[in-house]
This record gives sequence, C-alpha cells and structure tokens, in this order.
Amino acid sequence: MSTRSFFRVDRPMTVAEIADLTGASLRRDGNRDRRITGIATLDRAGPADLVFLDHMKFTGLARGCAAGACLTAGRFAEFVPASVAVLVVDEPYRAFVKVARALYPGALRPSSLYEAVGVSAGAVVHPTARLESGVTVDPGAVIGAGAEIGSGTVVGANAVIGSHVKIGRDCAIGANATVAHALIGDRVILHPGCLIGQDGFGYVMGPAGHSKVPQVGRVIIQDDVEIGAGSAIDRGAARDTVIGEGTKIDNQVQVGHNVTIGRHCVLVAQTGIAGSATLEDFVVLGARAGVKDHVTIGEGAQIAATASVASDVPPGERWGGTPAKPMAQWLRELAFLNRTGRSPEGQGGRNND
Amino acid sequence: MSTRSFFRVDRPMTVAEIADLTGASLRRDGNRDRRITGIATLDRAGPADLVFLDHMKFTGLARGCAAGACLTAGRFAEFVPASVAVLVVDEPYRAFVKVARALYPGALRPSSLYEAVGVSAGAVVHPTARLESGVTVDPGAVIGAGAEIGSGTVVGANAVIGSHVKIGRDCAIGANATVAHALIGDRVILHPGCLIGQDGFGYVMGPAGHSKVPQVGRVIIQDDVEIGAGSAIDRGAARDTVIGEGTKIDNQVQVGHNVTIGRHCVLVAQTGIAGSATLEDFVVLGARAGVKDHVTIGEGAQIAATASVASDVPPGERWGGTPAKPMAQWLRELAFLNRTGRSPEGQGGRNND
Amino acid sequence: MSTRSFFRVDRPMTVAEIADLTGASLRRDGNRDRRITGIATLDRAGPADLVFLDHMKFTGLARGCAAGACLTAGRFAEFVPASVAVLVVDEPYRAFVKVARALYPGALRPSSLYEAVGVSAGAVVHPTARLESGVTVDPGAVIGAGAEIGSGTVVGANAVIGSHVKIGRDCAIGANATVAHALIGDRVILHPGCLIGQDGFGYVMGPAGHSKVPQVGRVIIQDDVEIGAGSAIDRGAARDTVIGEGTKIDNQVQVGHNVTIGRHCVLVAQTGIAGSATLEDFVVLGARAGVKDHVTIGEGAQIAATASVASDVPPGERWGGTPAKPMAQWLRELAFLNRTGRSPEGQGGRNND
Repeated sequence: MSTRSFFRVDRPMTVAEIADLTGASLRRDGNRDRRITGIATLDRAGPADLVFLDHMKFTGLARGCAAGACLTAGRFAEFVPASVAVLVVDEPYRAFVKVARALYPGALRPSSLYEAVGVSAGAVVHPTARLESGVTVDPGAVIGAGAEIGSGTVVGANAVIGSHVKIGRDCAIGANATVAHALIGDRVILHPGCLIGQDGFGYVMGPAGHSKVPQVGRVIIQDDVEIGAGSAIDRGAARDTVIGEGTKIDNQVQVGHNVTIGRHCVLVAQTGIAGSATLEDFVVLGARAGVKDHVTIGEGAQIAATASVASDVPPGERWGGTPAKPMAQWLRELAFLNRTGRSPEGQGGRNND
Repeated sequence: MSTRSFFRVDRPMTVAEIADLTGASLRRDGNRDRRITGIATLDRAGPADLVFLDHMKFTGLARGCAAGACLTAGRFAEFVPASVAVLVVDEPYRAFVKVARALYPGALRPSSLYEAVGVSAGAVVHPTARLESGVTVDPGAVIGAGAEIGSGTVVGANAVIGSHVKIGRDCAIGANATVAHALIGDRVILHPGCLIGQDGFGYVMGPAGHSKVPQVGRVIIQDDVEIGAGSAIDRGAARDTVIGEGTKIDNQVQVGHNVTIGRHCVLVAQTGIAGSATLEDFVVLGARAGVKDHVTIGEGAQIAATASVASDVPPGERWGGTPAKPMAQWLRELAFLNRTGRSPEGQGGRNND
Repeated sequence: MSTRSFFRVDRPMTVAEIADLTGASLRRDGNRDRRITGIATLDRAGPADLVFLDHMKFTGLARGCAAGACLTAGRFAEFVPASVAVLVVDEPYRAFVKVARALYPGALRPSSLYEAVGVSAGAVVHPTARLESGVTVDPGAVIGAGAEIGSGTVVGANAVIGSHVKIGRDCAIGANATVAHALIGDRVILHPGCLIGQDGFGYVMGPAGHSKVPQVGRVIIQDDVEIGAGSAIDRGAARDTVIGEGTKIDNQVQVGHNVTIGRHCVLVAQTGIAGSATLEDFVVLGARAGVKDHVTIGEGAQIAATASVASDVPPGERWGGTPAKPMAQWLRELAFLNRTGRSPEGQGGRNND
C-alpha cells in the first residue's frame, strides 16, 4: 500500500496469522500462506489487501472484489469471489480493526511530522522545563518554564506548551497546538491546532461595558483522552475543567469553563458544551450537539446529532431536538410537522390527512 | 491555592480588606484579620479561600463549606457555618468578582506562556517592524515588515503578525494566533489560535467554476475587545470588518467580511455572522447563534442560543428559533410542538389535549 | 486607497480602460482619462475609486456618491451624480469584480505575511524535502522529510508541512496551517490555521472504552481548491478523503474521513460533513449546514443554511430544515408553525386562523 498511504506496513501478516489473531475460520485452506500487506475498501482492494464485508448492501461490491482476504460473517461468505481468502467471524468489522491495529501500529498515535527523534535543533525549550528521556520535540515547538513532559511523548512542530504545564507519558501533542494551565495524563492525544487552557468566557456585564472575571482554574485531562483538531477546552474559573479517562473528542469541539466530562464519553465534531455542565461516564454527543450551561447529562445517555440540551438528561436515555427531549417525543414532533409540510395547504395536524 | 492554580496570589487580603473593597458588612467581627489567599467554590474551599453564595439551591453545599470567608446576601447568611467569616452584601457574585480581580491581577490579561520579558531570542521580528519599549515577544512569534506594536503588549509564542499590522498598547496576542491586514486598538485580547484578517469568502459563481473576488478591506478591532480561541474574523471586501470597543467574543466564532459589530456586544461560543451583517451596540448572541448576511440586529437586542437570525431584529427585542422570531412567538411554537409530541398518536395541534 | 487598504494598486486604470475590460458603455465621454486607483463602496468612495450600483435599494446611497466611476445597469444610471463617470453594463457586479481582479492581482492569492522571498532564515526545511525553485517559505515554517513543494508556492509563517506531503505549484499555505498525509494540487489556497490530514474519528466502542481504528488513508486536494481559516479535513480510514477541483470551502468547516467532495462545490462557513458522505459536483452548502455520514448529495443540489441533511438528496434539488427535506416542504412546515406561534393561545394548526 506504499503508494496509497503515508503509513508503511513493516510486518505483513499471512492469512493464517490473521485467522489466529481474530479467531476467524478460514473457508479455503489453500490460502493460509497468502501475505497481506495492507487494508482497503471492497472496491479498491488489490491482491495483498484485507477487506471486510458485514452488510447486505455491500455484497454487490464484494462480487467484484480483488482483495487478498475478506473478513466476513458466514451468511455473506457466498458473495465473496473464489480468488479471495474468506475468513468467517462473528463481528467482521471488529476483527478487521484488530488486524488493522496489528498491521499499522504507527497509526495508533500521531508521530513526529518531521521524523524527528529527541529534541529538535529548532525547538525552544525553557531551561527550567523538565523532559524525561525519550521525549520528541519537533522543530518550532516552544516549551515554557517549569513544564514537565513524560517519556515517549511527542510534541509536534510549532506546538506551544505553557509554563508549568504537566504532560504524562506516551502522549502526542499535535502541531500548532497550544496547551496552557493544564495537567495532562498518559497516552493523551491532542490533534493539531488544539487550544487547551485559555480563559473561560466570564464577565460581569454592565451598562458601561463588561468586566472580566478572572479564570484561575485549570484543565485536567485524564489518561487516554483524545481531542480533535481545532477543539478548544477552556480552563476553569474558580474550579477546574475536567476531561475524564478515555473520553474521545472530535474536531472543532468547544468545552467551556468548569465543565466536567466523565470517563469514556464520545463527543462528535462541532459539539459545544457551555460552562459548568456535567457529562457523566459513557455519554455520547452526536455531531454538533450543544449542551447548556449547568446542565447534567446522566451516565450512558446519548444525544442525537444537532440536538441542543437545555435541561438535565436522565442516565441511559436518548434525546434529540432543540430544545432536546426524549427521542420518541422528538420523532413524534417531527412526524407531525412532516405531515403539515406534505399537505399542500400546509394545514396538517389533523387526523384525516 | 498554589497547588490548585497556575495563578499565584502575591498579596493576600484580610477579611476586613475584603469588606472595605466590596462594602460588605462583616457578621462576626472576630474574623477581621483572617487572611484570604485564593478563591474557590463552596464544595472545594479551604480555610484561606473566599467563596460566595447567592442562590437557594447552593445552601446545601454551603452548610458543609470549609471556606475562610463567604460573600452572601443577608437572607442566605444563616446557611453558612459558624467557622466561616460571613460578608453580607447586596450582590454577592459582583462582590466576589471584585475581590477575585484584586487577588489575581495577573489573570485579567494573558501573559507570556514562556515567562519571557522583551523580545525572545527565538522570535523573528522584521527589521522594519517598530516595537515600542516594553513589548514582550515569545519564542517563535513572527512579526512582519512595517508592523507596529505598542508598549505593554505581549505577542504569544508562534503567533504571526502580518506586515503593516498595527497593534496598540497592553494587548495580548495569543500563542499560534495569526493577525493580518488589521488595525488593533489598546488592551485588546486575542486568545490562542485566533485567525484575523484572512480573505472573506467571495466568488463570482459560474458554470465553469468560481472566480475569486479580491478582498482588499481591513479588520478594525477597537479598544478593549476580547476574541476567543480559534475564532476567525475575515477582512472586508471593498470596506472594513469592524469590531467595536469593548465587545467580547468567545471561542470558535466566525465573523464574515464587511461585518460591523458595535460596542460592548457579547458573542458566545460558536456563533457565526455572515458577510455584511450589522450588530448595533450591546447586542448579545447566545451560543451558536447565527446571523444571515446583510441583516441588522438593533441596539441591545438579545438572540437566544442556537437561533438563526434571517431578518432584521428591532432594538431591545429578544428573539429565538430558526428562523429567529420574537421570543414569545418562538416559545408558543415550541409549546405547540411539545403537545404534538407528548400525544402518543402524534396528532397534537388540537384544543382538547 | 493606500491608507484604507493593505493592498496597493500598482497600475491604476483609466475609465476608458475599464470600459474596454468590461465592455461597458461610457455615458459621459469627458471622463475617459480619469484615473481609478481603487475600489470602494458607494458611501465611502473618493474621486479615484470605482464603485458599482446594481439594486434599487442602494440608489439613495448612490445619489451622495463621490466616486470617480460607477459600473451600473442602464436603469440605475439616472441615480448617479453628474460628477461620477457612469459605465453602463448588463451585470454591474461581475464587471466590478473583473476590474477589481485587474487592479489588485496581489489579492487573488495570499502572499507572504513577512514579505519574504525564497526560504527564510527562520524556516526549518528537512534536508530530504524537495522544493522547486521559486518557492517562498516564511519564517518559522517547518517542512518535513521527503515533502515536495512546487514552484511559486508560498508556505506561510509557522505553517507545518508533514513528511512526504506533496504540494503543487502556485499554492498558498496559510500561516499556522498544518498539513499532513496529503497530496495537494496546483493553485490551492489553504488559509491560516487550516488543519489538513489528521486522524479521522473512528473507534470500536465497548464497555471498557473505545479502541482506535487506524486511519491510514490520505487527503487528496485537487487543483484550484480554496479552504478557509480554521477548517479541518481529516484523512481517510482505509481510503482517501477527496476535495474536488475548484471547490471553495469557507472558515471553520469540518470534513470527516472518507468524504468525497466533487468539483466546484461551495461550502459556506461552519458547515460539517460526517464521515464517508459524498457531495457530487457543484453542490452548495449554506452556512452551518450539516451532512450525515454516508449520505450522498446529488450534482448541483443546494442545501439551505443551518439545514442538517440526513438522507440522500437528488441532483439539482434545494433542501432545507433539520432533518433536511425539499425546500417547499420545509417552508410549508415553517409557515404552519408560524401560525401556531402567532396565535396567542398557541393552538394553531387550524384552518380558520
């Protein structure tokens, strides 16, 4: 896949190794030693690529597939051409990801965009900053006074780490990211352009203008958090903004001051969380969802894309709409509106339409 | 608060000094000399912290509070434990902010993330740029030809100031911010990653593609403006984009070309203002509000979060919804829809439900 | 216009030359040799400025206009003062843009913010990177191993170009932009703070946390694409993210992994496109429109501002709303709702209101 990807597979796998790794059963035994050197989609795969097939709607593509091997469920095996090694497994996509992670270990965490090792000549590290051994700092990165950075962490080109920030081990700080007033755990990924730890938006408003409320809290980012490109996390006012362990945040997300996000939440792109809101563990926010200030979203609750949450959401519920409400109710509202729109007179809302 | 904040209190205040500053009356006189060295929330405060209590819903937290002093209104004083110095005042939160501003003067304006003084060795300042004395330039910042920067201004690490940009005194330009084709007043704060002065989005569209309309206006940012992390202000096409004195803009806000924003407006996070719109003075846009091109929002009007303004809004009105309309009308629409959704048949819209 | 713009007009045009360029007919012949040195709006123009008038609502402004020349349609010519050279043409705005492009060739593509020529001393270019002659690299830019950059391209200050990225000729890469895992064509403009080629947002979710799906695809940006400030384009997972020739993308737009955007599309500010969606050629997305994952929007379809597209849109159609639907249907829904809101009892939905 060398010409099709910036990622190189250093250790190809045989079909037999893939079967071992995933617990798949191989349909045609003669293909055991075939070498797989990359992953691809059904329509683009070549004879050294692994693909997967897990839905009826892709069986058409599968018929023309030229891949080396295909992870699929038993009921789809018949759609895969005879030239392809068929690996049958209960959850084809999970198995495919497992193999992809084994083939591309270098894609699991961003690495130096400069292929640097150690502290680059063009980086500026304050003499009082403390870097463990095995830290990579790309050219142009600036690391402030008293900052501490753990072993294995990569600080991207032109990233800025403010004074006294602490970053754990095996983190990846993206190019052009800015991190200030923050404590960051291990294995945290901040993608390029992340903006962490600037002032929250707080003023005492008055007829002569607005007076800034000092923002003296911090940003706490726990282990295994990932934050997308261009996302902004403001530091707290009189307490901290906290992002819980394992939470994954997509691009262009805004998290206001004093927000507490639990463990293993998922925030899809362009979501926004206003100040002092709380997300308990395993909350999912769909793309561009919004959460009002001081609202609490209960454990495991899921918010639909584009919804705006203006009141507390009980644990485990699914809400949607603006303002957000339980999914069933929102869908009934949409169905009702839809009837009014389909009626040419725009009168709807009656039983007889 | 040294371990809980990146901001140090150099000059602690006694309870008596806090009473003097805020005009509060001290309930228990024996606490006059107690030293306050930080601020905190009710549930996290220690014996040297100041807290405030201004709402019935927090009285439960107040009962367990271990703070040194509490600013509160007379009617809540009884909920504060005897160990806490009680400072009674009409507006507890305003008084609290007043004290916070006195305790943390360094938090009122972002300072160097590198603890730099003067022009850092790693900064690149064009020989024709003119910096007054007392300008701080962090490492990696780039300042273009003929740029002018006033005394007391801090240019953050890896910020880029384009040629001939003028920046006034006592400004803070955030790390990784980009400023071009702009004139900036005094005491302006641009947070990290701000994008100021790039081309507006203008094309003459046609069947063979889109032809760029030259954008030769400027961005004018008046005194005491604050602009949040990752916000983008495009320069004008044939005239200027103007942000009026004292206006406060949150993170990830988009302001299109030729927009005129008046004095002391407030734009909460993720709002977007399309080209050639006008906001008069003291307009407030809630989070993620949108404003259509060429629309005018009158003085003091307030737009609810998530609303999309598609027509002129008269001064002083409160609007919400998509498209935005007067608040009362929007709330009636929502109430109506809500009834249709609560009815299991989804029929709603009738008088008898 | 020297004091009113950062762009200088090196070669002023006479009124006669403007008439020649645009095919306009000059009403008053005595003005043929008048020199035009800039463009302006009707209310701000001086005697050396060109303006245009193409709508009845601006005729009031036109009466007081002090411009040197005005491009307008025949029916508006009477509103232009006698002191102004009147150039009559069918499409005044298109003609105005044509002249503006001739007057300000330097505004058609961003140039060095440092007025640099060649590779600046403060830039960091990896020894294995290959730059054609005539590349400009501003101070602080970092260019990775094996990257290739074509003649005439400007890499802005503190921009980061990742290893093995290929960028064509006559491109402009904005200050503080980050580009990785990408192949970029000719005459592409990336505005400041663009974030190109970071990981797509893909996880296998589970009760113990979320496991990252390797993102080993690329970003392909074809010729003549323009991407606004702070916009983010994720690279593909197992295939590529593709932005087609001539497509124009505004600020703060999010494009997810595997998205395919056709030729000459227009994406206005703050739009978001979820993973694996497809936009065919000449699609227009209004401001802050959203597109669900795996959806296809047909050729030439137009999506209204703030709409959220959750299902395929046929070619050529105009859709709006959340979830998006054909425009006529959406407008009927809005009209219906509007009636419910205008009725003080909030009952609406009846024929007799």
